[in-house]
Amino acid sequence: MYNLPSGLRDFPPEIKILRNKIFSKIEEIFKRFGFDPIETPTIEYWDTMKGKYGEEAENKLIWRFKLPYSDKEYALRYDQTVPLARFFSNHRPNLPFKRYVIDKSYRYENPQKGRYREFYQADFDIIGSKEPESDAEILNIVNFIFKEFNFSNYKIIINDREFLRFVFEKNLNINEEKIRKVYTIIDKLDKIGIENVKRELNTVVGELSDKIVEIISLRNQEVIDYLSKYEEISKEINYFNNILDLLNDKGRIEINLSLVRGLDYYTGMIYEAVVEKPRIGSLSGGGRYDNLLKLFTNEEIPAVGGSIGVERLIDAGIELGIFKIDKKTYTEICVIYFEDTFKDAWNICNKLREIGLNCYIDLMRRDFNKQIKYAVDKDIRFLLIVGKKELSENSVLLQDRYTKERIRISINNLEDIYRIVKNIINNSY
Amino acid sequence: MYNLPSGLRDFPPEIKILRNKIFSKIEEIFKRFGFDPIETPTIEYWDTMKGKYGEEAENKLIWRFKLPYSDKEYALRYDQTVPLARFFSNHRPNLPFKRYVIDKSYRYENPQKGRYREFYQADFDIIGSKEPESDAEILNIVNFIFKEFNFSNYKIIINDREFLRFVFEKNLNINEEKIRKVYTIIDKLDKIGIENVKRELNTVVGELSDKIVEIISLRNQEVIDYLSKYEEISKEINYFNNILDLLNDKGRIEINLSLVRGLDYYTGMIYEAVVEKPRIGSLSGGGRYDNLLKLFTNEEIPAVGGSIGVERLIDAGIELGIFKIDKKTYTEICVIYFEDTFKDAWNICNKLREIGLNCYIDLMRRDFNKQIKYAVDKDIRFLLIVGKKELSENSVLLQDRYTKERIRISINNLEDIYRIVKNIINNSY
Repeated sequence: MYNLPSGLRDFPPEIKILRNKIFSKIEEIFKRFGFDPIETPTIEYWDTMKGKYGEEAENKLIWRFKLPYSDKEYALRYDQTVPLARFFSNHRPNLPFKRYVIDKSYRYENPQKGRYREFYQADFDIIGSKEPESDAEILNIVNFIFKEFNFSNYKIIINDREFLRFVFEKNLNINEEKIRKVYTIIDKLDKIGIENVKRELNTVVGELSDKIVEIISLRNQEVIDYLSKYEEISKEINYFNNILDLLNDKGRIEINLSLVRGLDYYTGMIYEAVVEKPRIGSLSGGGRYDNLLKLFTNEEIPAVGGSIGVERLIDAGIELGIFKIDKKTYTEICVIYFEDTFKDAWNICNKLREIGLNCYIDLMRRDFNKQIKYAVDKDIRFLLIVGKKELSENSVLLQDRYTKERIRISINNLEDIYRIVKNIINNSY
Repeated sequence: MYNLPSGLRDFPPEIKILRNKIFSKIEEIFKRFGFDPIETPTIEYWDTMKGKYGEEAENKLIWRFKLPYSDKEYALRYDQTVPLARFFSNHRPNLPFKRYVIDKSYRYENPQKGRYREFYQADFDIIGSKEPESDAEILNIVNFIFKEFNFSNYKIIINDREFLRFVFEKNLNINEEKIRKVYTIIDKLDKIGIENVKRELNTVVGELSDKIVEIISLRNQEVIDYLSKYEEISKEINYFNNILDLLNDKGRIEINLSLVRGLDYYTGMIYEAVVEKPRIGSLSGGGRYDNLLKLFTNEEIPAVGGSIGVERLIDAGIELGIFKIDKKTYTEICVIYFEDTFKDAWNICNKLREIGLNCYIDLMRRDFNKQIKYAVDKDIRFLLIVGKKELSENSVLLQDRYTKERIRISINNLEDIYRIVKNIINNSY
């Protein structure tokens, strides 16, 4: 028995069909917003990825390796952002460059629910714009996706790295040594609650923890009002207000100074989208990263983007009943034959395929009952029964397994089957 | 400057869009034939792949490696067949199991035209049927695909491993030591021509080369007639005739005893699809492999399948003018604004996205001419001009860049834009 390495998954048809449907819908939305697809290889030189993701990734998480036949050091894609930057520097497309990608990345994490060693992300980035409308567009896409999928209890938490820097580093004057610890603690607010945050902060910054807790308890307009007291940050507040002004669904937005996000490369607006239930962490995250491209191009090129954590989105959606694993096959018709009608059934089956229908015909010479059983197990909705008697009358029987309805169809009018079947199937999905 | 490792490729939007279209069409055809998709991970244990592909693959071609943080030996998928066998043994789906997959495999080949280190294959396999109708279905799919893509000069060469064994090993009595060399030589017939084959054969089997050349020069009914003289092979001939009887497009078939195919695991029918021009090798290949599953399941489980070499298919199709890199974007409308109409344009743009149109609006605060230039460069067909004057009359202007036609649309009837644009775009692709 050969097994899969842990953290890696197979997707049997019913799961793959659901995933295809979800990915198509996400892709549809990216297209709506004027994004186009690119693809980069799974494999990059390790050199390209080195120094981009921080220590933990480099020492524990990146799939990096040499082959027995080469001195080159390779690595599997860790995310889609660094490959995008590399792609951009190699191809230099016109600006703004709006691209989406729905593809796999690889992290050697400890496998657990919602965390896999090979996983899909759906990324959307805008390279070249330093204007708030590009930040707003990213947030509007996220909102559009969650709305389209009928998530009801989601919110999009936003913050700005400039606010964090001003409030904690400049205003509260927390030094470099402590600031990372502070950020790590406040970032956990959603997970561990305000009391625990306060206690942990206290061990790092002492009495300042009261002040910090007060600040990170502010929400929405309170945050803006608080920051507006400081002239030094007015330009950033203004930019942030411009973003807010362009958002489609302001009720879903929560401004919250406790949002930090792990990756070093963010420079401005940052966001995370979360659902109340299930408690699965953020389903999407991203922000502005105006310095990353420079590592690849030696030029200042602003960028902003986001990523849908589709694995978590799918897991959460299934748990919430939004996504249902209810389609086992793309096949629409199971052609049923008898011993003496196989050749006719075969020809009819192939004609229907030419017409545009997804058809199955038994390939194992099984009897009527076993053919039906296969259609039932696979949940193929329509049966097309090719019997001797019907053939002698130049017809076949189309049966809808769901409604039990049977229709006699002339062999000269097989197109009728197309019309009937597609009509019913399109109305039911 | 960071570059890609050799043999790996980026796909910019215009290529990715073409590839998406081709892959969708192939997928559509797989569905027509009653196949459903599965997905297996890119990574397998090396153990799963070991001993399945032959020496050359194991010693030179398979991407195999260890990570710095684990003793496990991993490998990247070399094809889709072994992962299918592993999947089958783990999940044991109902029979027949008909699955398709369009995904990447990895081989550390010397990069050259049409040969990449990461490449897509489109595989379709039927597990569980030992009947000729399953072989026929595989060949019918291949024919369907080439017909659907309007390849004109293709043929599907078929043979049977049982014929090879009978003719060369039993009848001509070529011993084990020499038989591999003989197969390798006759398999090159298409590439090097009959005279060279004869010369090379002569160095291995001496005068027997005349007889061999005679046999491998037979085509179609000549092959059947020749083999029919031998009672010992009558069961296999009968099976083969049953396959032929079920083929949709017999004119495309060439029976040819020189077809060998490299992989060891084939046991019965084998095929390759080739085009006359360009001379790029086979675009699809496959056959029956009744013993492979046993390595995974310890049971006799018959299987037959094929693979479309989509990289070559695409390269050949582009060279033949069948595929055109003529679509740079999925975006249908470029919303054009003026300094004082941005906010209105933004809102209209987002409304159109909700209605279902793929819209772009400039995110860099560029002037009218630069906005138009972007639309032209990207080849976005429609412009939606949101001007002050039109707005004051509660309308916008929709312009078809191709026909130069301009239509005034009321802001209350933005759905009209959907109707007009989708109608024109659906008729043109």
